[in-house]
Amino acid sequence: MKIDDNFLERVFSGDKRAIARAISIVEDETEGRDEILRRIYSRTGNAYKIGITGPPGAGKSTLTNALVKLLVSKGYKVGVIAIDPTSPFTGGALLGDRIRMNDIGMLDGVYIRSMATRGSLGGLSMNVVEACDVLDASGKDFILIETVGVGQSELDIAKTADTTIVVLVPESGDAIQAMKAGLMEIADIFVLNKSDREGADGVAATLKNIIHLKPPTEDNWIINVLKTIGSQNKGIEELLAEVDKHKAHLEESGYLKKKRIANLTKKIYELVHNKLNFTFWDSAKKRSLDENLNEIYEKRKDPYSYVESIM
Amino acid sequence: MKIDDNFLERVFSGDKRAIARAISIVEDETEGRDEILRRIYSRTGNAYKIGITGPPGAGKSTLTNALVKLLVSKGYKVGVIAIDPTSPFTGGALLGDRIRMNDIGMLDGVYIRSMATRGSLGGLSMNVVEACDVLDASGKDFILIETVGVGQSELDIAKTADTTIVVLVPESGDAIQAMKAGLMEIADIFVLNKSDREGADGVAATLKNIIHLKPPTEDNWIINVLKTIGSQNKGIEELLAEVDKHKAHLEESGYLKKKRIANLTKKIYELVHNKLNFTFWDSAKKRSLDENLNEIYEKRKDPYSYVESIM
Repeated sequence: MKIDDNFLERVFSGDKRAIARAISIVEDETEGRDEILRRIYSRTGNAYKIGITGPPGAGKSTLTNALVKLLVSKGYKVGVIAIDPTSPFTGGALLGDRIRMNDIGMLDGVYIRSMATRGSLGGLSMNVVEACDVLDASGKDFILIETVGVGQSELDIAKTADTTIVVLVPESGDAIQAMKAGLMEIADIFVLNKSDREGADGVAATLKNIIHLKPPTEDNWIINVLKTIGSQNKGIEELLAEVDKHKAHLEESGYLKKKRIANLTKKIYELVHNKLNFTFWDSAKKRSLDENLNEIYEKRKDPYSYVESIM
Repeated sequence: MKIDDNFLERVFSGDKRAIARAISIVEDETEGRDEILRRIYSRTGNAYKIGITGPPGAGKSTLTNALVKLLVSKGYKVGVIAIDPTSPFTGGALLGDRIRMNDIGMLDGVYIRSMATRGSLGGLSMNVVEACDVLDASGKDFILIETVGVGQSELDIAKTADTTIVVLVPESGDAIQAMKAGLMEIADIFVLNKSDREGADGVAATLKNIIHLKPPTEDNWIINVLKTIGSQNKGIEELLAEVDKHKAHLEESGYLKKKRIANLTKKIYELVHNKLNFTFWDSAKKRSLDENLNEIYEKRKDPYSYVESIM
């Protein structure tokens, strides 16, 4: 697609269809991708990114939903990126919470996008960053990034956010398990959702104890544990107030810039990496690999010597 | 370290200290790394790799433990690689299940290794593959790879196994949540652990229904749901029998070779990628990046044009 000024102006003005088209181009790596990214870049940096993560079943979508409504009621424009590790055979049909999200997608100034994790190791966090750039350039004040799962690449996505909310529920298993999954390392705010359920106070107390054990962060931020009941809209105002507090803290400490420069560095490394690979694996190299694989599999050649021979 | 024949012979003979040293060299990318990998390669391919994954708290370590004991009692040599997303501040002190594992580590022919996920996005699955190669070359018949978490990079690690066991518990949340985390895509065998707990039959039935909905795999393997109680050693014989069945299926269908060649291809791509990056980012390029980061952050330059300019 040819990227004309008119199309970009529509993106900048927040036109939902133009935003959707721009993210698709960026995500699918079709023609026009680089041009869009290059041309929107100077418009980015204004949106504040909130990561919402935690184990499956913690009610992240419901919380996201409630936060979006609250932000909209305060006059903010909001983008949502939901990372969906859909199975090839579910086809999204079982994703009831995504469907529930559609009602907020109808609100003025709100744009919601689902992104799949399938087949995009490493690439996913870059795609998320770039989709955020589009939303950012489209004038959103806040971008909510909801990730399902607790694995490494989800954690990396969370790190691209300015503030990361980790959502747990009383049933999330004991706090030690949560820490083992690396959640403690990325949380700026803990939310104990569904906090009317049995065991909530105990889990909240354990979390607070664990936070005390943790050495202070580089920027001296103190992680708070908030209780919410997403489905009843309880605790959402308090959660947003805590996000604001963290935002102010990051800005005053200079840590927001530091964090964003670190993300920028990572992005540049990834851009270089992609271009290097693309240039290296021309058709001759690919053919050579095809021709040698069997020999390597049968141990008549080793992959290390082979790689040296083609470089 | 200089890699002499004597050291490698000790690795090949299954000497635990030599194995430990070899994996450390391979993992830490110290001198000697490439030489070890190149020289052990022809000895690999004999061990059968079993991935054990699932959400935190599913009892994977206990199951791994029980499987190792059973395999040893049958005269097999076993290696275990446990992926630990340890927090910097837990320092492993809270990892009770790793400590429990130590008693099987004392058994003859058993070698256990913990590996951290921290700071090694992408690199981790390669490190795991290479540690497996060392264990493989050391004469292990089986290698068990236990991954905590349900995210993308954990799923990628699971894919390096020949047979992947996905462990759930009645409390794992409903099966839809499990599928959302991508577990369904990688399971060759489902295990419902702690199956004496309430709700086990319901979850097992739901899982079976979902398996029926799934289109047949490329190699026509039918996923089974087995019940275990790891802590009471119940269902472990049946689980190993199912692994054997899957192994025979993979071998007869030619799919084992196909799977391993796919992993080999991935490994070669990663080797190339690492070498390209290493060569590209010389000190001049790193200095250039440092000098330009602020300008890019302040939007006076965009990262895409910058990357083009240095390539």
